[in-house]
Amino acid sequence: MSSDPCITLVTGGARSGKSALAETIAARHEGARIYIATAEARDDEMTQRIGLHRDRRGSGWRTVEEPRDLAGALARTDGQGARLVDCLTLWLSNLMADGDDPGPRVRRLCEVLGTQDSPVVLVTNELGLGIVPENALARRFRDEHGWMNQAVARVADEVWMAVSGLPLCLKPQRGTP
Amino acid sequence: MSSDPCITLVTGGARSGKSALAETIAARHEGARIYIATAEARDDEMTQRIGLHRDRRGSGWRTVEEPRDLAGALARTDGQGARLVDCLTLWLSNLMADGDDPGPRVRRLCEVLGTQDSPVVLVTNELGLGIVPENALARRFRDEHGWMNQAVARVADEVWMAVSGLPLCLKPQRGTP
Amino acid sequence: MSSDPCITLVTGGARSGKSALAETIAARHEGARIYIATAEARDDEMTQRIGLHRDRRGSGWRTVEEPRDLAGALARTDGQGARLVDCLTLWLSNLMADGDDPGPRVRRLCEVLGTQDSPVVLVTNELGLGIVPENALARRFRDEHGWMNQAVARVADEVWMAVSGLPLCLKPQRGTP
Repeated sequence: MSSDPCITLVTGGARSGKSALAETIAARHEGARIYIATAEARDDEMTQRIGLHRDRRGSGWRTVEEPRDLAGALARTDGQGARLVDCLTLWLSNLMADGDDPGPRVRRLCEVLGTQDSPVVLVTNELGLGIVPENALARRFRDEHGWMNQAVARVADEVWMAVSGLPLCLKPQRGTP
Repeated sequence: MSSDPCITLVTGGARSGKSALAETIAARHEGARIYIATAEARDDEMTQRIGLHRDRRGSGWRTVEEPRDLAGALARTDGQGARLVDCLTLWLSNLMADGDDPGPRVRRLCEVLGTQDSPVVLVTNELGLGIVPENALARRFRDEHGWMNQAVARVADEVWMAVSGLPLCLKPQRGTP
Repeated sequence: MSSDPCITLVTGGARSGKSALAETIAARHEGARIYIATAEARDDEMTQRIGLHRDRRGSGWRTVEEPRDLAGALARTDGQGARLVDCLTLWLSNLMADGDDPGPRVRRLCEVLGTQDSPVVLVTNELGLGIVPENALARRFRDEHGWMNQAVARVADEVWMAVSGLPLCLKPQRGTP
Protein backbone atom coordinates (compact mmCIF):
# COMPACT_ATOMS: atom_id res chain seq x y z
CA MET A 1 0.00 0.00 0.00
CA SER A 2 1.29 3.46 -0.86
CA SER A 3 2.00 5.95 1.90
CA ASP A 4 -0.59 8.35 0.44
CA PRO A 5 -4.05 8.19 1.93
CA CYS A 6 -5.89 5.91 -0.40
CA ILE A 7 -8.95 4.44 1.32
CA THR A 8 -11.69 7.08 1.58
CA LEU A 9 -15.19 6.66 2.99
CA VAL A 10 -17.88 9.18 2.03
CA THR A 11 -21.05 9.07 4.10
CA GLY A 12 -24.15 11.25 4.24
CA GLY A 13 -27.91 11.32 3.98
CA ALA A 14 -30.11 10.79 0.94
CA ARG A 15 -29.52 13.46 -1.76
CA SER A 16 -26.75 15.03 0.29
CA GLY A 17 -24.24 15.08 -2.54
CA LYS A 18 -22.32 11.96 -1.43
CA SER A 19 -21.74 10.53 -4.91
CA ALA A 20 -20.63 13.86 -6.39
CA LEU A 21 -18.22 14.35 -3.46
CA ALA A 22 -16.87 10.82 -3.95
CA GLU A 23 -16.30 11.53 -7.65
CA THR A 24 -14.42 14.74 -6.78
CA ILE A 25 -12.21 12.80 -4.40
CA ALA A 26 -11.60 10.00 -6.90
CA ALA A 27 -10.68 12.63 -9.51
CA ARG A 28 -7.71 13.75 -7.35
CA HIS A 29 -6.05 10.48 -8.31
CA GLU A 30 -4.34 10.30 -11.68
CA GLY A 31 -4.86 7.50 -14.17
CA ALA A 32 -7.78 5.23 -14.96
CA ARG A 33 -11.01 5.27 -12.97
CA ILE A 34 -13.25 2.33 -12.28
CA TYR A 35 -16.79 2.62 -11.01
CA ILE A 36 -17.91 -0.43 -9.00
CA ALA A 37 -21.71 -0.38 -8.99
CA THR A 38 -23.47 -2.45 -6.33
CA ALA A 39 -26.97 -1.48 -7.46
CA GLU A 40 -29.30 -3.90 -9.16
CA ALA A 41 -31.90 -2.27 -11.39
CA ARG A 42 -34.86 -4.14 -9.91
CA ASP A 43 -37.50 -1.46 -10.57
CA ASP A 44 -38.06 1.72 -12.56
CA GLU A 45 -37.14 4.02 -9.68
CA MET A 46 -33.76 2.33 -9.25
CA THR A 47 -33.12 2.26 -13.01
CA GLN A 48 -33.71 6.01 -13.09
CA ARG A 49 -31.35 6.69 -10.16
CA ILE A 50 -28.62 4.58 -11.79
CA GLY A 51 -29.04 6.55 -15.03
CA LEU A 52 -28.76 9.90 -13.23
CA HIS A 53 -25.48 8.88 -11.61
CA ARG A 54 -24.07 7.52 -14.89
CA ASP A 55 -24.91 10.75 -16.74
CA ARG A 56 -23.17 12.86 -14.11
CA ARG A 57 -19.98 10.79 -14.08
CA GLY A 58 -19.66 11.14 -17.84
CA SER A 59 -17.06 9.22 -19.85
CA GLY A 60 -13.63 8.36 -18.49
CA TRP A 61 -15.01 5.72 -16.16
CA ARG A 62 -15.07 1.97 -16.67
CA THR A 63 -18.06 0.39 -14.92
CA VAL A 64 -17.93 -2.94 -13.07
CA GLU A 65 -21.25 -4.26 -11.77
CA GLU A 66 -20.80 -6.28 -8.61
CA PRO A 67 -23.80 -6.41 -6.28
CA ARG A 68 -22.35 -9.01 -3.85
CA ASP A 69 -18.65 -9.98 -4.13
CA LEU A 70 -17.23 -6.57 -3.39
CA ALA A 71 -14.01 -7.90 -1.83
CA GLY A 72 -13.42 -9.93 -4.99
CA ALA A 73 -14.13 -6.97 -7.28
CA LEU A 74 -11.60 -4.85 -5.38
CA ALA A 75 -8.98 -7.60 -5.48
CA ARG A 76 -9.51 -8.12 -9.23
CA THR A 77 -9.29 -4.40 -10.10
CA ASP A 78 -6.36 -3.47 -7.86
CA GLY A 79 -3.50 -1.93 -9.82
CA GLN A 80 -5.82 -0.83 -12.64
CA GLY A 81 -6.75 2.64 -11.28
CA ALA A 82 -8.80 4.39 -8.62
CA ARG A 83 -12.02 2.59 -7.72
CA LEU A 84 -15.26 4.26 -6.63
CA VAL A 85 -17.69 1.89 -4.86
CA ASP A 86 -21.28 3.19 -4.96
CA CYS A 87 -22.61 2.16 -2.57
CA LEU A 88 -22.10 0.05 0.58
CA THR A 89 -25.74 0.48 1.62
CA LEU A 90 -27.05 -1.31 -1.47
CA TRP A 91 -24.35 -3.97 -1.11
CA LEU A 92 -25.44 -4.68 2.48
CA SER A 93 -29.05 -4.69 1.38
CA ASN A 94 -28.27 -7.27 -1.33
CA LEU A 95 -26.45 -9.51 1.17
CA MET A 96 -29.27 -9.35 3.68
CA ALA A 97 -31.91 -9.98 1.01
CA ASP A 98 -30.04 -13.23 0.26
CA GLY A 99 -30.16 -14.18 3.94
CA ASP A 100 -26.37 -13.87 4.35
CA ASP A 101 -24.87 -12.96 7.71
CA PRO A 102 -23.17 -9.67 6.77
CA GLY A 103 -20.58 -9.76 9.60
CA PRO A 104 -18.02 -12.03 7.88
CA ARG A 105 -18.51 -10.24 4.53
CA VAL A 106 -17.81 -6.87 6.15
CA ARG A 107 -14.71 -8.23 7.89
CA ARG A 108 -13.46 -9.66 4.59
CA LEU A 109 -14.06 -6.31 2.86
CA CYS A 110 -12.03 -4.52 5.54
CA GLU A 111 -9.17 -7.01 5.18
CA VAL A 112 -9.06 -6.49 1.41
CA LEU A 113 -9.18 -2.70 1.87
CA GLY A 114 -6.05 -3.00 4.02
CA THR A 115 -4.07 -4.58 1.15
CA GLN A 116 -4.95 -2.32 -1.81
CA ASP A 117 -2.27 -0.57 -3.87
CA SER A 118 -4.70 1.58 -5.86
CA PRO A 119 -7.05 4.10 -4.22
CA VAL A 120 -10.60 3.19 -3.22
CA VAL A 121 -13.40 5.67 -2.49
CA LEU A 122 -16.47 4.07 -0.90
CA VAL A 123 -19.90 5.70 -0.65
CA THR A 124 -22.25 4.84 2.21
CA ASN A 125 -25.28 6.38 3.92
CA GLU A 126 -25.95 7.70 7.41
CA LEU A 127 -29.38 6.28 8.15
CA GLY A 128 -29.57 5.95 11.95
CA LEU A 129 -30.55 9.55 12.72
CA GLY A 130 -34.32 9.23 12.52
CA ILE A 131 -36.97 7.83 14.84
CA VAL A 132 -36.60 4.10 15.64
CA PRO A 133 -38.31 2.24 12.75
CA GLU A 134 -41.45 0.31 13.68
CA ASN A 135 -40.40 -2.48 11.32
CA ALA A 136 -38.10 -5.10 12.97
CA LEU A 137 -36.30 -5.83 9.68
CA ALA A 138 -35.57 -2.12 9.23
CA ARG A 139 -34.18 -2.01 12.78
CA ARG A 140 -31.92 -4.97 12.05
CA PHE A 141 -30.75 -3.40 8.79
CA ARG A 142 -30.04 -0.16 10.64
CA ASP A 143 -27.95 -2.06 13.21
CA GLU A 144 -25.92 -4.04 10.67
CA HIS A 145 -25.47 -0.90 8.57
CA GLY A 146 -24.17 1.11 11.51
CA TRP A 147 -21.70 -1.63 12.42
CA MET A 148 -20.55 -1.82 8.78
CA ASN A 149 -19.98 1.95 8.66
CA GLN A 150 -17.97 1.84 11.90
CA ALA A 151 -15.81 -1.04 10.61
CA VAL A 152 -15.06 0.63 7.26
CA ALA A 153 -14.47 4.05 8.86
CA ARG A 154 -11.94 2.41 11.19
CA VAL A 155 -9.78 1.12 8.30
CA ALA A 156 -10.27 4.20 6.10
CA ASP A 157 -7.50 6.80 5.81
CA GLU A 158 -10.05 9.58 5.50
CA VAL A 159 -13.79 9.89 6.12
CA TRP A 160 -16.06 12.65 4.85
CA MET A 161 -19.72 13.38 5.49
CA ALA A 162 -21.76 15.24 2.87
CA VAL A 163 -24.41 17.61 4.30
CA SER A 164 -26.50 19.73 1.91
CA GLY A 165 -23.86 19.11 -0.71
CA LEU A 166 -21.01 20.36 1.52
CA PRO A 167 -18.10 18.23 2.75
CA LEU A 168 -17.48 17.80 6.49
CA CYS A 169 -14.26 16.01 7.39
CA LEU A 170 -14.61 13.37 10.12
CA LYS A 171 -11.16 11.71 9.78
CA PRO A 172 -8.63 13.18 9.97
CA GLN A 173 -9.84 16.63 11.00
CA ARG A 174 -9.15 19.12 8.21
CA GLY A 175 -10.72 21.61 5.83
CA THR A 176 -11.84 20.81 2.28
CA PRO A 177 -11.40 17.79 0.00
CA MET B 1 -24.73 42.95 -3.31
CA SER B 2 -22.54 43.99 -0.41
CA SER B 3 -19.14 42.34 0.08
CA ASP B 4 -20.21 41.10 3.54
CA PRO B 5 -21.52 37.56 3.75
CA CYS B 6 -25.22 38.04 3.49
CA ILE B 7 -26.90 34.81 2.38
CA THR B 8 -26.93 32.29 5.23
CA LEU B 9 -28.46 28.82 5.24
CA VAL B 10 -29.25 27.17 8.59
CA THR B 11 -30.04 23.47 8.44
CA GLY B 12 -30.62 20.83 11.11
CA GLY B 13 -32.99 18.21 12.41
CA ALA B 14 -36.36 18.65 14.10
CA ARG B 15 -36.07 20.54 17.43
CA SER B 16 -32.36 21.06 16.90
CA GLY B 17 -32.45 24.79 17.57
CA LYS B 18 -32.38 25.85 13.89
CA SER B 19 -34.81 28.75 14.20
CA ALA B 20 -33.15 30.16 17.34
CA LEU B 21 -29.76 29.95 15.61
CA ALA B 22 -31.16 31.68 12.52
CA GLU B 23 -32.55 34.47 14.73
CA THR B 24 -29.15 34.91 16.40
CA ILE B 25 -27.50 35.18 12.99
CA ALA B 26 -30.13 37.64 11.71
CA ALA B 27 -29.62 39.73 14.87
CA ARG B 28 -25.98 40.38 13.87
CA HIS B 29 -27.33 42.63 11.14
CA GLU B 30 -28.34 46.17 12.10
CA GLY B 31 -31.64 47.74 11.11
CA ALA B 32 -35.11 46.37 10.52
CA ARG B 33 -35.88 42.65 10.56
CA ILE B 34 -38.46 40.89 8.45
CA TYR B 35 -39.70 37.39 9.15
CA ILE B 36 -40.90 35.59 6.02
CA ALA B 37 -43.18 32.78 7.17
CA THR B 38 -43.84 29.95 4.71
CA ALA B 39 -46.07 27.99 7.11
CA GLU B 40 -49.80 27.67 6.63
CA ALA B 41 -51.77 27.06 9.82
CA ARG B 42 -53.73 24.11 8.43
CA ASP B 43 -54.23 22.28 11.75
CA ASP B 44 -53.94 22.79 15.53
CA GLU B 45 -50.47 21.29 15.74
CA MET B 46 -49.12 23.70 13.12
CA THR B 47 -50.93 26.67 14.68
CA GLN B 48 -49.25 25.85 17.98
CA ARG B 49 -45.78 25.57 16.41
CA ILE B 50 -46.22 28.91 14.65
CA GLY B 51 -47.24 30.53 17.96
CA LEU B 52 -44.19 29.13 19.79
CA HIS B 53 -41.85 30.61 17.20
CA ARG B 54 -43.62 33.99 17.23
CA ASP B 55 -43.40 34.21 21.03
CA ARG B 56 -39.68 33.52 21.01
CA ARG B 57 -38.89 36.10 18.33
CA GLY B 58 -40.69 38.80 20.31
CA SER B 59 -41.32 42.27 18.92
CA GLY B 60 -38.92 44.00 16.53
CA TRP B 61 -39.88 41.74 13.64
CA ARG B 62 -42.27 42.50 10.83
CA THR B 63 -43.95 39.31 9.56
CA VAL B 64 -44.66 38.58 5.89
CA GLU B 65 -46.63 35.42 5.18
CA GLU B 66 -45.65 33.89 1.86
CA PRO B 67 -46.22 30.14 1.52
CA ARG B 68 -45.38 29.93 -2.21
CA ASP B 69 -43.85 32.96 -3.98
CA LEU B 70 -40.68 33.13 -1.96
CA ALA B 71 -38.59 34.62 -4.77
CA GLY B 72 -41.19 37.40 -5.09
CA ALA B 73 -41.27 38.04 -1.34
CA LEU B 74 -37.48 38.41 -1.26
CA ALA B 75 -37.48 40.74 -4.26
CA ARG B 76 -40.24 42.89 -2.72
CA THR B 77 -38.56 43.20 0.71
CA ASP B 78 -34.96 43.76 -0.49
CA GLY B 79 -33.53 47.00 0.87
CA GLN B 80 -35.93 47.02 3.82
CA GLY B 81 -33.79 45.01 6.29
CA ALA B 82 -32.55 41.51 7.08
CA ARG B 83 -34.96 38.75 6.11
CA LEU B 84 -35.35 35.43 7.93
CA VAL B 85 -37.12 32.74 5.85
CA ASP B 86 -38.63 30.00 8.05
CA CYS B 87 -38.63 27.55 6.42
CA LEU B 88 -37.69 26.10 3.03
CA THR B 89 -39.05 22.66 3.96
CA LEU B 90 -42.60 23.95 4.36
CA TRP B 91 -42.22 26.04 1.21
CA LEU B 92 -41.23 22.94 -0.80
CA SER B 93 -44.05 20.99 0.82
CA ASN B 94 -46.56 23.67 -0.23
CA LEU B 95 -45.28 23.64 -3.82
CA MET B 96 -45.42 19.87 -4.06
CA ALA B 97 -48.90 19.75 -2.50
CA ASP B 98 -50.01 22.02 -5.37
CA GLY B 99 -48.49 19.60 -7.88
CA ASP B 100 -45.81 22.10 -8.98
CA ASP B 101 -42.45 20.90 -10.29
CA PRO B 102 -40.15 22.37 -7.64
CA GLY B 103 -37.03 22.44 -9.83
CA PRO B 104 -37.72 25.75 -11.67
CA ARG B 105 -38.95 27.38 -8.42
CA VAL B 106 -35.73 26.42 -6.63
CA ARG B 107 -33.61 27.72 -9.52
CA ARG B 108 -35.55 31.02 -9.48
CA LEU B 109 -35.04 31.31 -5.70
CA CYS B 110 -31.29 30.82 -6.13
CA GLU B 111 -31.15 33.48 -8.86
CA VAL B 112 -32.96 35.99 -6.64
CA LEU B 113 -30.68 35.15 -3.69
CA GLY B 114 -27.73 36.08 -5.92
CA THR B 115 -29.04 39.63 -6.43
CA GLN B 116 -30.02 40.67 -2.88
CA ASP B 117 -28.62 43.80 -1.24
CA SER B 118 -30.02 43.05 2.22
CA PRO B 119 -29.13 39.94 4.21
CA VAL B 120 -31.19 36.76 4.01
CA VAL B 121 -31.10 33.91 6.54
CA LEU B 122 -32.91 30.77 5.37
CA VAL B 123 -33.95 27.87 7.61
CA THR B 124 -34.20 24.34 6.23
CA ASN B 125 -34.18 20.77 7.58
CA GLU B 126 -31.86 17.83 7.18
CA LEU B 127 -34.28 14.96 6.67
CA GLY B 128 -32.43 12.36 4.64
CA LEU B 129 -30.57 10.69 7.51
CA GLY B 130 -33.13 8.07 8.48
CA ILE B 131 -34.17 4.73 7.01
CA VAL B 132 -35.56 4.93 3.43
CA PRO B 133 -39.28 5.80 3.80
CA GLU B 134 -41.72 3.08 2.69
CA ASN B 135 -43.99 5.77 1.23
CA ALA B 136 -43.11 6.70 -2.39
CA LEU B 137 -44.30 10.29 -1.96
CA ALA B 138 -42.06 10.68 1.09
CA ARG B 139 -39.13 9.34 -0.94
CA ARG B 140 -39.83 11.85 -3.72
CA PHE B 141 -40.12 14.69 -1.20
CA ARG B 142 -36.83 13.60 0.37
CA ASP B 143 -35.14 13.67 -3.04
CA GLU B 144 -36.46 17.08 -4.07
CA HIS B 145 -35.67 18.45 -0.60
CA GLY B 146 -32.08 17.23 -0.75
CA TRP B 147 -31.57 18.77 -4.18
CA MET B 148 -33.08 22.06 -2.93
CA ASN B 149 -30.72 22.09 0.06
CA GLN B 150 -27.71 21.47 -2.19
CA ALA B 151 -28.74 24.26 -4.58
CA VAL B 152 -29.28 26.83 -1.83
CA ALA B 153 -26.12 25.80 0.06
CA ARG B 154 -24.16 26.34 -3.17
CA VAL B 155 -25.22 30.00 -3.49
CA ALA B 156 -25.08 30.72 0.27
CA ASP B 157 -22.14 32.64 1.72
CA GLU B 158 -22.31 30.62 4.92
CA VAL B 159 -24.04 27.42 5.99
CA TRP B 160 -24.62 26.24 9.55
CA MET B 161 -26.06 23.02 10.93
CA ALA B 162 -27.76 23.01 14.35
CA VAL B 163 -27.23 19.82 16.40
CA SER B 164 -28.68 19.58 19.91
CA GLY B 165 -28.93 23.38 19.90
CA LEU B 166 -25.25 23.83 18.99
CA PRO B 167 -23.97 25.43 15.76
CA LEU B 168 -21.69 23.48 13.42
CA CYS B 169 -20.22 25.49 10.56
CA LEU B 170 -20.33 23.75 7.18
CA LYS B 171 -19.34 26.71 4.94
CA PRO B 172 -16.91 28.33 5.30
CA GLN B 173 -15.12 26.35 8.02
CA ARG B 174 -14.97 28.42 11.23
CA GLY B 175 -15.92 28.52 14.91
CA THR B 176 -19.09 30.11 16.26
CA PRO B 177 -21.80 32.31 14.73
CA MET C 1 -17.75 21.57 40.95
CA SER C 2 -14.16 21.13 39.83
CA SER C 3 -12.71 23.52 37.29
CA ASP C 4 -12.10 20.61 34.89
CA PRO C 5 -14.76 19.95 32.30
CA CYS C 6 -16.86 17.27 33.87
CA ILE C 7 -20.31 17.16 32.23
CA THR C 8 -20.07 15.56 28.78
CA LEU C 9 -22.92 14.83 26.38
CA VAL C 10 -22.39 12.25 23.63
CA THR C 11 -24.99 12.22 20.90
CA GLY C 12 -25.31 10.33 17.62
CA GLY C 13 -27.42 8.03 15.53
CA ALA C 14 -28.24 4.37 16.07
CA ARG C 15 -25.10 2.14 15.95
CA SER C 16 -22.89 5.19 15.51
CA GLY C 17 -20.49 4.23 18.31
CA LYS C 18 -21.98 6.59 20.93
CA SER C 19 -21.65 4.21 23.90
CA ALA C 20 -18.07 3.21 23.03
CA LEU C 21 -17.13 6.89 22.68
CA ALA C 22 -18.79 7.68 26.02
CA GLU C 23 -16.81 4.85 27.67
CA THR C 24 -13.55 6.22 26.19
CA ILE C 25 -14.37 9.66 27.60
CA ALA C 26 -15.33 8.27 31.02
CA ALA C 27 -12.04 6.32 31.07
CA ARG C 28 -10.09 9.62 31.01
CA HIS C 29 -11.22 10.14 34.58
CA GLU C 30 -9.32 8.33 37.32
CA GLY C 31 -10.98 6.34 40.08
CA ALA C 32 -14.18 4.34 40.27
CA ARG C 33 -16.69 4.17 37.42
CA ILE C 34 -20.42 3.87 37.75
CA TYR C 35 -22.71 2.90 34.90
CA ILE C 36 -26.23 4.31 35.29
CA ALA C 37 -28.49 2.19 33.09
CA THR C 38 -31.86 3.66 32.16
CA ALA C 39 -32.93 0.67 30.05
CA GLU C 40 -35.62 -1.72 31.13
CA ALA C 41 -35.33 -5.22 29.65
CA ARG C 42 -38.93 -5.38 28.49
CA ASP C 43 -38.34 -7.73 25.54
CA ASP C 44 -35.71 -10.07 24.06
CA GLU C 45 -34.33 -7.47 21.65
CA MET C 46 -33.68 -5.02 24.51
CA THR C 47 -32.22 -7.76 26.75
CA GLN C 48 -29.77 -8.61 23.97
CA ARG C 49 -28.72 -4.95 23.46
CA ILE C 50 -28.16 -4.53 27.21
CA GLY C 51 -25.99 -7.66 27.23
CA LEU C 52 -23.88 -6.44 24.29
CA HIS C 53 -23.13 -3.16 26.07
CA ARG C 54 -22.32 -4.91 29.37
CA ASP C 55 -19.89 -7.29 27.64
CA ARG C 56 -18.05 -4.42 25.97
CA ARG C 57 -17.66 -2.39 29.17
CA GLY C 58 -16.12 -5.37 30.95
CA SER C 59 -15.36 -5.35 34.67
CA GLY C 60 -14.33 -2.19 36.54
CA TRP C 61 -17.80 -0.72 36.37
CA ARG C 62 -20.47 -0.72 39.07
CA THR C 63 -23.96 -0.75 37.56
CA VAL C 64 -26.90 1.24 38.93
CA GLU C 65 -30.25 0.63 37.25
CA GLU C 66 -32.42 3.72 37.33
CA PRO C 67 -35.02 3.98 34.57
CA ARG C 68 -36.78 7.10 35.94
CA ASP C 69 -35.20 9.04 38.85
CA LEU C 70 -32.03 10.04 37.04
CA ALA C 71 -31.54 13.27 39.03
CA GLY C 72 -31.76 11.23 42.25
CA ALA C 73 -29.30 8.60 40.99
CA LEU C 74 -26.76 11.31 40.11
CA ALA C 75 -27.20 13.02 43.48
CA ARG C 76 -26.80 9.69 45.33
CA THR C 77 -23.65 8.64 43.43
CA ASP C 78 -21.87 12.02 43.40
CA GLY C 79 -18.42 11.80 44.99
CA GLN C 80 -18.17 8.07 44.27
CA GLY C 81 -16.58 8.25 40.80
CA ALA C 82 -17.30 9.08 37.17
CA ARG C 83 -20.83 8.26 36.07
CA LEU C 84 -21.87 7.16 32.58
CA VAL C 85 -25.61 7.55 31.89
CA ASP C 86 -26.77 5.30 29.02
CA CYS C 87 -29.06 6.69 27.77
CA LEU C 88 -31.26 9.80 27.95
CA THR C 89 -33.43 8.59 25.07
CA LEU C 90 -34.64 5.53 27.00
CA TRP C 91 -35.07 7.64 30.15
CA LEU C 92 -37.33 10.08 28.26
CA SER C 93 -39.18 7.16 26.70
CA ASN C 94 -39.82 5.67 30.17
CA LEU C 95 -41.12 9.01 31.50
CA MET C 96 -43.44 9.51 28.55
CA ALA C 97 -44.70 5.90 28.75
CA ASP C 98 -45.76 6.72 32.34
CA GLY C 99 -47.64 9.80 31.12
CA ASP C 100 -45.25 12.21 32.90
CA ASP C 101 -44.67 15.70 31.54
CA PRO C 102 -40.94 15.48 30.77
CA GLY C 103 -40.27 19.24 30.95
CA PRO C 104 -39.89 19.53 34.77
CA ARG C 105 -37.87 16.28 34.92
CA VAL C 106 -35.44 17.60 32.31
CA ARG C 107 -35.10 20.93 34.14
CA ARG C 108 -34.42 19.08 37.41
CA LEU C 109 -31.79 16.91 35.67
CA CYS C 110 -30.04 20.02 34.35
CA GLU C 111 -30.05 21.61 37.84
CA VAL C 112 -28.48 18.52 39.37
CA LEU C 113 -25.87 18.35 36.57
CA GLY C 114 -24.86 21.90 37.53
CA THR C 115 -23.99 20.83 41.10
CA GLN C 116 -21.97 17.64 40.53
CA ASP C 117 -18.45 17.21 41.92
CA SER C 118 -17.72 13.98 40.04
CA PRO C 119 -17.77 13.69 36.24
CA VAL C 120 -20.87 12.68 34.31
CA VAL C 121 -20.94 11.42 30.72
CA LEU C 122 -24.44 11.22 29.24
CA VAL C 123 -25.38 9.33 26.08
CA THR C 124 -28.28 10.49 23.91
CA ASN C 125 -29.48 10.04 20.33
CA GLU C 126 -29.93 12.37 17.40
CA LEU C 127 -33.27 11.26 16.01
CA GLY C 128 -34.77 14.31 14.29
CA LEU C 129 -32.93 13.98 10.97
CA GLY C 130 -35.37 11.76 9.12
CA ILE C 131 -38.69 12.37 7.38
CA VAL C 132 -41.47 13.69 9.69
CA PRO C 133 -43.03 10.58 11.33
CA GLU C 134 -46.62 9.83 10.36
CA ASN C 135 -47.36 8.80 13.96
CA ALA C 136 -48.39 11.75 16.21
CA LEU C 137 -46.86 10.12 19.31
CA ALA C 138 -43.55 9.71 17.49
CA ARG C 139 -43.68 13.40 16.50
CA ARG C 140 -44.31 14.41 20.11
CA PHE C 141 -41.46 12.18 21.33
CA ARG C 142 -39.18 13.72 18.70
CA ASP C 143 -40.10 17.22 19.90
CA GLU C 144 -39.57 16.49 23.59
CA HIS C 145 -36.36 14.63 22.81
CA GLY C 146 -34.96 17.52 20.81
CA TRP C 147 -35.76 19.98 23.59
CA MET C 148 -34.13 17.64 26.13
CA ASN C 149 -30.96 17.41 24.02
CA GLN C 150 -30.79 21.20 23.68
CA ALA C 151 -31.24 21.68 27.46
CA VAL C 152 -28.56 19.15 28.41
CA ALA C 153 -26.15 20.37 25.69
CA ARG C 154 -26.53 23.90 27.12
CA VAL C 155 -25.33 22.87 30.61
CA ALA C 156 -22.69 20.42 29.34
CA ASP C 157 -19.01 21.38 29.34
CA GLU C 158 -18.40 19.40 26.19
CA VAL C 159 -20.60 17.79 23.54
CA TRP C 160 -19.55 15.15 21.02
CA MET C 161 -21.41 13.57 18.14
CA ALA C 162 -20.49 10.05 16.99
CA VAL C 163 -20.77 9.48 13.21
CA SER C 164 -19.76 6.10 11.75
CA GLY C 165 -17.82 5.47 14.96
CA LEU C 166 -15.86 8.74 14.68
CA PRO C 167 -16.05 11.62 17.18
CA LEU C 168 -17.09 15.10 16.01
CA CYS C 169 -16.74 17.84 18.63
CA LEU C 170 -19.71 20.21 18.85
CA LYS C 171 -18.77 22.07 22.08
CA PRO C 172 -16.19 23.43 22.51
CA GLN C 173 -14.66 23.19 19.03
CA ARG C 174 -11.60 20.92 19.15
CA GLY C 175 -10.01 17.81 17.73
CA THR C 176 -10.22 14.36 19.34
CA PRO C 177 -11.48 13.09 22.70
